[in-house]
Amino acid sequence: MSRTYTIALDCMGGDHGVDVVVPAAVNALAHFADVELVLVGDEARVSAKLLELGVATGQRLQLQHASEVVGMDEPPAQALRTKKDSSMRVAINLVKDGRADACVSAGNTGALMATARYVLKTLPGIDRPAICTAIPSERGHTRMLDLGANVDCTAEHLYQFAVMGSVLTQAMDNNPAPRIGLLNVGAEAIKGNDQVKEAGRLLEEAPGINYIGYVEGDDIYLGEVDVVVCDGFVGNVSLKTSEGVAKMVSRHLKAQFKRTWYTKLAALLAMPVLKSFQQRFDPRRYNGASLLGLQGIVIKSHGGTDVMGFENAIKVARREAETAVPQLIDTQLEGLLTQRHDS
Amino acid sequence: MSRTYTIALDCMGGDHGVDVVVPAAVNALAHFADVELVLVGDEARVSAKLLELGVATGQRLQLQHASEVVGMDEPPAQALRTKKDSSMRVAINLVKDGRADACVSAGNTGALMATARYVLKTLPGIDRPAICTAIPSERGHTRMLDLGANVDCTAEHLYQFAVMGSVLTQAMDNNPAPRIGLLNVGAEAIKGNDQVKEAGRLLEEAPGINYIGYVEGDDIYLGEVDVVVCDGFVGNVSLKTSEGVAKMVSRHLKAQFKRTWYTKLAALLAMPVLKSFQQRFDPRRYNGASLLGLQGIVIKSHGGTDVMGFENAIKVARREAETAVPQLIDTQLEGLLTQRHDS
Repeated sequence: MSRTYTIALDCMGGDHGVDVVVPAAVNALAHFADVELVLVGDEARVSAKLLELGVATGQRLQLQHASEVVGMDEPPAQALRTKKDSSMRVAINLVKDGRADACVSAGNTGALMATARYVLKTLPGIDRPAICTAIPSERGHTRMLDLGANVDCTAEHLYQFAVMGSVLTQAMDNNPAPRIGLLNVGAEAIKGNDQVKEAGRLLEEAPGINYIGYVEGDDIYLGEVDVVVCDGFVGNVSLKTSEGVAKMVSRHLKAQFKRTWYTKLAALLAMPVLKSFQQRFDPRRYNGASLLGLQGIVIKSHGGTDVMGFENAIKVARREAETAVPQLIDTQLEGLLTQRHDS
Repeated sequence: MSRTYTIALDCMGGDHGVDVVVPAAVNALAHFADVELVLVGDEARVSAKLLELGVATGQRLQLQHASEVVGMDEPPAQALRTKKDSSMRVAINLVKDGRADACVSAGNTGALMATARYVLKTLPGIDRPAICTAIPSERGHTRMLDLGANVDCTAEHLYQFAVMGSVLTQAMDNNPAPRIGLLNVGAEAIKGNDQVKEAGRLLEEAPGINYIGYVEGDDIYLGEVDVVVCDGFVGNVSLKTSEGVAKMVSRHLKAQFKRTWYTKLAALLAMPVLKSFQQRFDPRRYNGASLLGLQGIVIKSHGGTDVMGFENAIKVARREAETAVPQLIDTQLEGLLTQRHDS
């Protein structure tokens, strides 16, 4: 029998909880024959949803009760201290105990990171876990990290992010030598702050890392870099800026096409183009951010996503389990650290 | 006779030099009856361009020779030290000597900032000048600063940027109480790095500043904040990220509309919508960034802009001269500093 991947799902997280997570789980089971899922959350509510969908639990779809829920705005430290039986924590515990290969949550990002870090611990050689996601670019996608876990970063942190992003991209995209860029305010060596300059020096000397130098904000979308590395403040602002521009552009286009009977007709005729446009940049296709640097796989789904989006996050978790991302990061880091100590 | 505004133009800066600056100057003179321009640059080349356009110098259009040109990639310190007769420096000198009310350059940003700062000096109470520009938003535009002059900023610097952005927006947009937001990674008070948190505290206590709290990257485009304040690293990345997304979206739409005879027909019919879309977000309409915090008005034009874009930068310079932005900043700062010392 071939390998199966067990993924624990926090059913109570995100804006829609069981209404999105449970149907997404059912779809994922149909699409991925090698996946088994554990639905973690309030037993009554999860069961009711399963009943509504006409689906029974079994070998591939188990239910694990959790009596508490972490609020979307709850301070991470409070969630960590007081919600020991939250659906989020229980899902992470399943990874810790080896009963799941990965977990997915659409809950509070800060609480997820704090809990995952506390329960799973970071990998040796990693000071701080980072959040990494794929972003659509002109020629596919670019991965970017950190997206908000660490607002202040040293050069060494940025260096570790680069290693983790490189390993993740090798594993997820079958890309043997991902091009790694450091996000900066100019391509010239004299530009940037001290952390970025020093991180550039560290990366230039790192064996096995295909470091291509500094990149700028617009390079994220040109498809000439595979992994963009930055601190969490910059990454978060950049990601949200992109979302803001995309939303404004799409709203403006919609409003303009609705203006008169003529523009409505034009919209009708342009529908195939507009649809393909929407599909290409559909955020649901990119849903599922990796919390990298932990001794276990934790995937963060966007809180507001729908069934299709959450299923994509499950797919990301499955792929990371298949390629054993944490072990790959561990091996790569060990090699780099040994070489650094030898030199 | 009513007031006129004299603006010095660096004719040699940017990707197109005299080919863009001189025609833009001629257009600006036609559009603004109260503007006088000084063309600064290589006399032979500027004269040849004027001859080509069939325009003569006179009271409203003077020519000031400058024998050197600052290269677009020249290190700022080198430009400052060795290019004492550059078109950029001579244009700034005209502002310093009171012979021009403002100057505009499409040249090397770093050199422009370094030279302007050296020649004009900062206003009392300003540690560092900042770069500010208007960005299209859902309901008009948002101003943002700093966009790259200062990669590391203290809370006090961010506070000063907020004051300058507020004054600029009051003057340029006839907006008596611009809403000021601090760019952060979340709206909650606990989020962000130390500089941003401390700047938030300073702004909450600043009289005359309509501080609305933290904003995130996507808020730049929603039209619910008038001035977004951040350090130059974050601002530069955010601005370039926006450019990258906009470029990718527009290229993708174009390519899709060109795919088949059907989509080409659809594009033809959708042309009025696509044109209005392009016009609304045309970067030339937003060209002309202000170097704020100096004892004089210096406007940076985008290096790659065309005649229409450069004329817009002249328009920005004219408006800042009309409203005397540096004096307004000086007055506002003096008031704030006095109140802080009294309290």
